[in-house]
Amino acid sequence: MLEDRLIGWRHRADVALARVLPDPEQSPRRLHAAMRHAVLLGGKRMRPLLVHASGALFGADETLLDAPAAAVELIHAYSLVHDDLPAMDDDALRRGQPTVHVAFDEATAILAGDALQSLAFAVIADAPATDAVRVALLRTLAEAAGAAGMCGGQALDLDATGNGTTLDVASLERLHALKTGALIRAAVRMGALCGGATDAELVALDRFATALGLAFQVRDDILDVEGDSATLGKTAGKDAAQDKATFPALIGLEASKARLQQLAAEMQDALAPFGAKADALAGLGRLAIERKH
Amino acid sequence: MLEDRLIGWRHRADVALARVLPDPEQSPRRLHAAMRHAVLLGGKRMRPLLVHASGALFGADETLLDAPAAAVELIHAYSLVHDDLPAMDDDALRRGQPTVHVAFDEATAILAGDALQSLAFAVIADAPATDAVRVALLRTLAEAAGAAGMCGGQALDLDATGNGTTLDVASLERLHALKTGALIRAAVRMGALCGGATDAELVALDRFATALGLAFQVRDDILDVEGDSATLGKTAGKDAAQDKATFPALIGLEASKARLQQLAAEMQDALAPFGAKADALAGLGRLAIERKH
Repeated sequence: MLEDRLIGWRHRADVALARVLPDPEQSPRRLHAAMRHAVLLGGKRMRPLLVHASGALFGADETLLDAPAAAVELIHAYSLVHDDLPAMDDDALRRGQPTVHVAFDEATAILAGDALQSLAFAVIADAPATDAVRVALLRTLAEAAGAAGMCGGQALDLDATGNGTTLDVASLERLHALKTGALIRAAVRMGALCGGATDAELVALDRFATALGLAFQVRDDILDVEGDSATLGKTAGKDAAQDKATFPALIGLEASKARLQQLAAEMQDALAPFGAKADALAGLGRLAIERKH
Repeated sequence: MLEDRLIGWRHRADVALARVLPDPEQSPRRLHAAMRHAVLLGGKRMRPLLVHASGALFGADETLLDAPAAAVELIHAYSLVHDDLPAMDDDALRRGQPTVHVAFDEATAILAGDALQSLAFAVIADAPATDAVRVALLRTLAEAAGAAGMCGGQALDLDATGNGTTLDVASLERLHALKTGALIRAAVRMGALCGGATDAELVALDRFATALGLAFQVRDDILDVEGDSATLGKTAGKDAAQDKATFPALIGLEASKARLQQLAAEMQDALAPFGAKADALAGLGRLAIERKH
């Protein structure tokens, strides 16, 4: 059962994260507590699940996948902490909890995010893998996190928000390919790297992950229109209120849903050569499209 | 001549940094411009110089040292960008230039800092070294940058600033051992790792770098009292105005200068076993103590 595997992997990820995060009883306690708040209070663990599902496709040892799974989630968590800051999206609620700068303070939130990013790379350094695999994981994660990946996408998002100009769909898709897509692609790739995937296999998986990343964001935009804050665990209707470029705003709700189905077909097609071994990845693709929060 | 070697290494560092930073003509331009502003407009390049001087002690190839030299400076530069933010030290002037959030905006400054940190690790991934050395560099830099290093020291600094309590000297020294010391120790260690230093040699160099890091900060505190903004390139007298714990405030100006001489002797002692091969490192130690800005 897919659901059982996901529960097991989610548990592994939670255990790995709790283990690598610094002790809240040790100084500097406030920083450590803020880091743990940012990571351990919920979250779907989508990226760690992708690492495990992708690694499973190649029969990679689960203990080998814990490090990249934790590392990619630490990068994701730090980005949320900084994204929620008053100077960025100014959000007070995340995963149904006060955001880090609300629960602590702004300076601590900035530092906690910074330290979470460093920790992600420290975890890669200590991964129980060969040095060659560690370096491949490092390169994948560092490139996905930086100006050519997630940070670059956030910068495009800043440029596009509330400045009166209208993005076209191609620009919006590029924005998301960087902002959320880069890290999702990195998660899939890191799992495959741990399993010794060939270059051709990495290319096929990248195609899958690219479609998944975009589908994830299209679904997010749809949920922001159709969902409610209690189910989402964050403030609904925020995109429209902030004049954010979204798929429903640009092409309408129905066309957004049609795009989602197109991406579902693209994912299936990319995974077809792997057959039943890719069931877990395929299932995660379906969940991204069907999720309610 | 030491000064000639430093000029050469500083030039190498500037060239390496300009090469690894993203193209300001490419999208997202504002982010790229902010990253370049943070790194390329001045700076003493103390940490890259330490990487080169430490590598030189072991006869390491200079082309091998460019990557860790650039990486440690990128971490340093990102920390300054975030440290200058309104929620942190709220500084408008750095190296005689407007700080990043003043020249650009707060959100861009947060993102530029984040992307600089990612870039530091991407540079390590692509260092022209063996995978084993890359992993050792990664571990050294990631640990020095995070909660057990620089970010932890900044958190201690936040806790200690303006909350009415008085730090004792031991706590202040621990704060600086993390806040500035960790990255300085990492710089020295990374140069030595590229040169194939033995564990015993790494221990001796760590003792040198620990004294250097503290000396650097004691000198900084003295300059904040005795210097002027034009020479410093940043606002003088700021520590006292912000009620920061400093060595002059805790133990007085004369005792601070005596502590500096003690640290000079400690540095000399740690480098003694290396003889004349350590001249460049020793010279950098003297500069840290005698510098005017």
